[in-house]
Amino acid sequence: MKLYIWGPAPNPRRVRMFLAEKGLEVPTEDVGAGALLKREFLERSPHRLTPMLELDDGTLIGEAMAICRYFEALHPEPPLFGRDAKQTALIEMWERKCEQEGLLAVGEVFRNSIPAFADRGLGGFSVPVPQIPALVERGKLRVRVFFGNLDAQLAQHPFVAGDAFSVADITALCTYDFAKRVGLAPDASAVHVARWYAQVAARPSANT
Amino acid sequence: MKLYIWGPAPNPRRVRMFLAEKGLEVPTEDVGAGALLKREFLERSPHRLTPMLELDDGTLIGEAMAICRYFEALHPEPPLFGRDAKQTALIEMWERKCEQEGLLAVGEVFRNSIPAFADRGLGGFSVPVPQIPALVERGKLRVRVFFGNLDAQLAQHPFVAGDAFSVADITALCTYDFAKRVGLAPDASAVHVARWYAQVAARPSANT
Repeated sequence: MKLYIWGPAPNPRRVRMFLAEKGLEVPTEDVGAGALLKREFLERSPHRLTPMLELDDGTLIGEAMAICRYFEALHPEPPLFGRDAKQTALIEMWERKCEQEGLLAVGEVFRNSIPAFADRGLGGFSVPVPQIPALVERGKLRVRVFFGNLDAQLAQHPFVAGDAFSVADITALCTYDFAKRVGLAPDASAVHVARWYAQVAARPSANT
Repeated sequence: MKLYIWGPAPNPRRVRMFLAEKGLEVPTEDVGAGALLKREFLERSPHRLTPMLELDDGTLIGEAMAICRYFEALHPEPPLFGRDAKQTALIEMWERKCEQEGLLAVGEVFRNSIPAFADRGLGGFSVPVPQIPALVERGKLRVRVFFGNLDAQLAQHPFVAGDAFSVADITALCTYDFAKRVGLAPDASAVHVARWYAQVAARPSANT
């Protein structure tokens, strides 16, 4: 078994943080090469994205949350996807919102504004995808709205999906730190996000 | 308990198809009003999106797959999210790919080209979001690449995530039919998609 990551990227970090919370160690290879992925990795992986988990039978599992679910099924404690139906649903809901409304929005700003990603406006494509400057402004709006919604949720609950730390917190933390790199972290008026961030960023697993 | 849907929209359809596969009936209300959602629904739902499941204790669960997981936890048979770790991971991976690379891409074309969605380039926003014409062409590329990848996968497997029907097939079918409405269904060269579509669209659950 091997986990393929791209050093500084937020999506592989979601998996590494999940594994750290579970106390699991998995052989890991960084297949990043600057702003590109190594050719050998791209040739072997039809999905052209990290993270990617390769099982011993050769099965390739992509998508951060799919890899996390693989390990959750084998190592259910501590549960990071919920215990009962309602918890499970709320965690799934908030994890997806953090990914789609937060992480993808920060990525939209990043991908469409950084010179190193010219003609790579979308990840995972083997053909050129031009940057779209209008997505930078739209992405900034999305990020602002996302952190506003997150602040409202965290005003009511200690963690993103309720009373317990979950994968929703992992995706939200990786989104926050990615936003910080791009200059889009929420300002001090998001007091509930700030309280939550201080708490979650102090977990040992965040040191990945 | 009540499920809020928007008649013709693909995301609520994913939930309705899932419930039909499980043989479950849930009180349902269509909160669509032409190309808008009803004001009463928007005032009650901070997420401003359908589908939305309201539990008897007032909890609101958004995101199609979160609602499906709620019912999967309460009614595990037949399993539509997988039985073992590997199946679970592959279904999660393909379901997310179908949503992000397929359904969201078709939605990108639809939202950014239809006059009824002027200033509503993204769903769920209470502020105007201008359409971005460049996303129409980019979205068409994404849809073509998605159906190409899906065809390659279905050349190897009877169903989207392997040997058994799963939520990945539900999202893929709703994506296909949405693409057909927008004129983006794959052409006849995608023979494996065509074989799969004929089979899955014939399931009684697809009649929703």
